Amino acid sequence: MEANMTNRIHDMVEGKHWVELRKWYADHNVLETADELSRLGPEHRAVAFRLLPKDRALRVFEEMDPSEQGRLIATLRKEHVVELFREMDPDDQVRLMDELPAKIAKDLLEGLSPQERHLTSILLGYPDDTVGRIMSPEFVSLRPTMTVSQAIEKVRRAGKMAETVYTLPVTEESFRLIGVVSLRELVLARPEALVGDLMNQEVFSAHADDDQEEAARLILEAGVIALPVLDREDRLVGVFTVDDAMEVLELESTEDFALSGATTSLNMPYMSASVLRLARIRVVWLLVLVLTASISVKVLDIFEATLQSVVTLTLFIPLLIDTGGNIGAQSSTLVVRAMAVGEIRFKDVFLVILRELRVGLLLGLMLGALALLPVSYFFDPKISLVLSLSLVSICIISATSGAALPMLAKRVGVDPAVVSAPIITTLVDSLGLIVYFLFANAILDI
Amino acid sequence: MEANMTNRIHDMVEGKHWVELRKWYADHNVLETADELSRLGPEHRAVAFRLLPKDRALRVFEEMDPSEQGRLIATLRKEHVVELFREMDPDDQVRLMDELPAKIAKDLLEGLSPQERHLTSILLGYPDDTVGRIMSPEFVSLRPTMTVSQAIEKVRRAGKMAETVYTLPVTEESFRLIGVVSLRELVLARPEALVGDLMNQEVFSAHADDDQEEAARLILEAGVIALPVLDREDRLVGVFTVDDAMEVLELESTEDFALSGATTSLNMPYMSASVLRLARIRVVWLLVLVLTASISVKVLDIFEATLQSVVTLTLFIPLLIDTGGNIGAQSSTLVVRAMAVGEIRFKDVFLVILRELRVGLLLGLMLGALALLPVSYFFDPKISLVLSLSLVSICIISATSGAALPMLAKRVGVDPAVVSAPIITTLVDSLGLIVYFLFANAILDI
Repeated sequence: MEANMTNRIHDMVEGKHWVELRKWYADHNVLETADELSRLGPEHRAVAFRLLPKDRALRVFEEMDPSEQGRLIATLRKEHVVELFREMDPDDQVRLMDELPAKIAKDLLEGLSPQERHLTSILLGYPDDTVGRIMSPEFVSLRPTMTVSQAIEKVRRAGKMAETVYTLPVTEESFRLIGVVSLRELVLARPEALVGDLMNQEVFSAHADDDQEEAARLILEAGVIALPVLDREDRLVGVFTVDDAMEVLELESTEDFALSGATTSLNMPYMSASVLRLARIRVVWLLVLVLTASISVKVLDIFEATLQSVVTLTLFIPLLIDTGGNIGAQSSTLVVRAMAVGEIRFKDVFLVILRELRVGLLLGLMLGALALLPVSYFFDPKISLVLSLSLVSICIISATSGAALPMLAKRVGVDPAVVSAPIITTLVDSLGLIVYFLFANAILDI
Repeated sequence: MEANMTNRIHDMVEGKHWVELRKWYADHNVLETADELSRLGPEHRAVAFRLLPKDRALRVFEEMDPSEQGRLIATLRKEHVVELFREMDPDDQVRLMDELPAKIAKDLLEGLSPQERHLTSILLGYPDDTVGRIMSPEFVSLRPTMTVSQAIEKVRRAGKMAETVYTLPVTEESFRLIGVVSLRELVLARPEALVGDLMNQEVFSAHADDDQEEAARLILEAGVIALPVLDREDRLVGVFTVDDAMEVLELESTEDFALSGATTSLNMPYMSASVLRLARIRVVWLLVLVLTASISVKVLDIFEATLQSVVTLTLFIPLLIDTGGNIGAQSSTLVVRAMAVGEIRFKDVFLVILRELRVGLLLGLMLGALALLPVSYFFDPKISLVLSLSLVSICIISATSGAALPMLAKRVGVDPAVVSAPIITTLVDSLGLIVYFLFANAILDI
């Protein structure tokens, strides 16, 4: 409950200051309102939400994450929920349904009119993470034989329900996509010009079965406002808009970023998550990492005789494993990102390993050279040699495995971001220690 | 040069197969073309680019990152460069100029017509990373007293040069923004309706001095296509569009992600970066981390007597520092992200530390309990106790510092992403080791 201490709505609800609350709502926009509501506990949030003016309530609701919407719905009356749900766009409905228990989702779907239900069901037929599940089935399409003024007339008639009217797909019979024209082009053109002459035939489009992230990245790179979406028979079935694309990329980068810190992503605002939930999203990764790290206990156990005879060797263990971990983290971060944006493909794997090998060698030689003098001076020239050789080897091992593992992960169908810095760090620890003690045994004649 | 081995354009340029290359261009869209060009070495890229059909060359050029554009320009003839530059939008011109040597940038600016130069100079007057530097100064604004048909007429007249005509700011005298109307609303409205009645008065806008990332996030959250941009006197000076916002957020998340792996971001496609450059973007962080990690050498040196008498203690050093590092990485990752999306503000700092303290305690107790039995069995119950108590303490220390340090960094004006996982890991190493040896000395009576 400490999350509420800094929240003004909390105090107004707590003190039942309804007039003050209504004034607050009038002074703040939908984003600010959604933001403050997300910082409330569930009971206060339900009360505060019910007091929103009706037209504003829907807009505030639309600003929330699907998971927040789901939790809010659990605290509202059924009529209120059905009403909110009916007003949402089909793609937003589907995203919310994915967050709700099956029973409630089914009830909501049944509260729709047959036509609304039909549209929503189309999206529900596509698997998670596909474009089909997030596209808008409500769009305006044109024919190449229409004049500009006929086309604008059609936009005026059919545009009310459509998610966007700025990108207008042009189709032939049986909904085959042959081009795209923008509303801007229509408005700027002569009224008697033909859509078929104006349209751009080099169309960027996506298939409903495509991965959401790839399609979103195409929107970003092509700088378009919407992509026409086709089914397997190449018939136009929807449009995928830039605002949904931004959300997909944002979610994806949140997930990758979370993985880079060895947690799964929170999927809700930090301040409204319970301590238990914060622990839960971390615990699985933590256990995996602790088990992996236990291998290092065994490695050191094997070399206990070496440690016993030259305790000084112990002093450099944290330095060595940190450095290996950091070099590995750098490689994996660069490679994961380059794969995410499509700069590296799997066929480049040997090139990438070769480059990272050279980078690792370069960095290792530098660090090894840096360590030589001070360590010789404070400790022993032989130990200094062991350390420097180990640094060079560990840098090479870490740089290459940091690059190779995410690529292999992707190859076998695992999200490369999973093979993130913490995993690499822990994996290279034991290898690094083995190299270190082998050098020590050889050079120190143990 | 190995980057070219997988590249087909490279082979065609190398073999001077111009007909084949022209056919390849005809078969591939601008994105694919830009993508393949980015994988070429500088000389081949210049040749391949010059062979692009003229209208396509500009579009391919626009698809490149500003840094890639800069490097390409260095290899093209001056007339060609001036021509390309003149065709670009002012905001793209400014981004490219930021990448070029001052002399070349000045030459290019002087190649513009007085009016073009005026627009570009407006943007150049704003500091880096502000909205002013990336906005489009070419927009269409309306008056509230216009009818819809007059407004559409104005869009037809003035819309050709504007970056977007979908978001139309409505202004009073002296360019004061009073509302926004979308082209969609205009097209759907009755021709005789007044802009003043149609417009939305609850406008999301940005100031030219605002941070680009915050304004981009507002576009994402509000789901709008463009934000009107105001100067300090609240006069309308430009619009900031969704495609530029996506690029800003993408760049920002690339930077944060790079920092999460302790490198600075590459700013160019991975495959076209040289090994030296790959090493250079990492070396500074690596040195910082190695120097920080050297503290652990000193800490272990101080406790050398303890290590000498109970060598078994050494076995758990990697496990302990990995675990501390991972818990710290988790906290900092969650907090850095929550700050980036505005879920946490600095005033929440004590709440956040308190929550992370509880999360750390919870995870520490779990790990400590897990370690007790196996370590008692294989080693010694007393060592097991030392380890478990250290795990609990280290988890608490790491979780709280992982959360607190990024928040403090932001407070003193440093990008919180800088205080990333690798830095936290290295910082908590020494603290963790001290705790471990203090427990050992106390419990094992050394």
